[in-house]
Amino acid sequence: MSQSDTQNLEKKIAGEKAAEFVSEGTVIGLGTGSTVYFAIRKLGEMVENGLDIKAVSTSHSTTELTKSFKIKTVSINDVDTIDLTIDGADEVDNNFNGIKGGGGALLFEKIAAMSSKKNIWAVDSGKMVDKLGMFPLPVEVIPFGYKRVFDMLEEINFKPSMRKNEGKFFLTDSGNYIFDLYLQKISNPMQLDKDLKSISGIVDTGLFIDIADTIIIGKSDKAEVLTK
Amino acid sequence: MSQSDTQNLEKKIAGEKAAEFVSEGTVIGLGTGSTVYFAIRKLGEMVENGLDIKAVSTSHSTTELTKSFKIKTVSINDVDTIDLTIDGADEVDNNFNGIKGGGGALLFEKIAAMSSKKNIWAVDSGKMVDKLGMFPLPVEVIPFGYKRVFDMLEEINFKPSMRKNEGKFFLTDSGNYIFDLYLQKISNPMQLDKDLKSISGIVDTGLFIDIADTIIIGKSDKAEVLTK
Repeated sequence: MSQSDTQNLEKKIAGEKAAEFVSEGTVIGLGTGSTVYFAIRKLGEMVENGLDIKAVSTSHSTTELTKSFKIKTVSINDVDTIDLTIDGADEVDNNFNGIKGGGGALLFEKIAAMSSKKNIWAVDSGKMVDKLGMFPLPVEVIPFGYKRVFDMLEEINFKPSMRKNEGKFFLTDSGNYIFDLYLQKISNPMQLDKDLKSISGIVDTGLFIDIADTIIIGKSDKAEVLTK
Repeated sequence: MSQSDTQNLEKKIAGEKAAEFVSEGTVIGLGTGSTVYFAIRKLGEMVENGLDIKAVSTSHSTTELTKSFKIKTVSINDVDTIDLTIDGADEVDNNFNGIKGGGGALLFEKIAAMSSKKNIWAVDSGKMVDKLGMFPLPVEVIPFGYKRVFDMLEEINFKPSMRKNEGKFFLTDSGNYIFDLYLQKISNPMQLDKDLKSISGIVDTGLFIDIADTIIIGKSDKAEVLTK
């Protein structure tokens, strides 16, 4: 198998394993991305076989998926709480902290996670790292006055790059820009998250600190479940 | 004169005085509200008399005003820096810190202020206070999952109230909601600002800390200018 075939299999194994944590009546938050896709597809099968759940989606693309798999989808503001959220991650360290937002849905994913009693991240084995930061850290930035924020980040050597899509600035579901910070290594993720969010114009960051309580890792052909 | 006549005269005096700080070639940031209106109207006269300036507006309503007064208006992202921003405030303390956002334009006003070399606030005398907090503190909140943020703020007794407009939720120029916090007294404005902004879903607050360097107060029939 090629490397990308292995990675894809690991994503499938991890995503489908995550779906097993969903039971009758669960209000399930659903992240966005290629690993969550497998969880959603599996949930679609379970719903077809009679499982009754409500899904809260974190992006337009996930909403399209849940609808195509006939999973009942409600607005986050229509539920009191989310029982469990299944999401992917771009990097996860040994403290269950992570970087997310490679797909650009970090803000809604973070809000859903904070609204959720339990958070599962499903990842392939390549996402596990000793220290966060090799994956570029996304920050969501208000378009009004974004240049000052960019210059500031450049000045402190955070190496920002404006995310683009087909030659245009990438826009989040909230209509904001994404800057990817090429930090290489993040020594204190919690402090960095606070410092970045204190800057007016930055809405949120892709640092997910103290949020996940279960990590499901696809490792070759089996799933490893880590709990806090 | 009635109280509201006096207040209006003080706003006019303060706003027009602020316009005197603008000179040939200035890139001028313009806030939003009833006191800034008088500054903009005065600037319109100065432009008609030959002054060449560029204005950066912080709201749709201010852009309408600058255009109606034939003031050249550019996007914040089209200028390298703003020389001077004139804005109002809802409350100002003796340390030149303030609460802004009664009009709902706090986010763009704050970003413009941070992008500005100099910041003038023009206010009527009723805006000066010993301690901030009697004026409800506005916070701008992402609609996705706003209920969790509301409940959180209620739980810590920050007495949030969702701002409405003609029976609907008020929407900022960024499409977000405003919660007004009825705090009565804010002991540590800087810490409160940081704490609120660390909450995912809160985009920014109406606390403007360490931003203004000049306060122009309309006091009966004259303007008092305070500088840091």
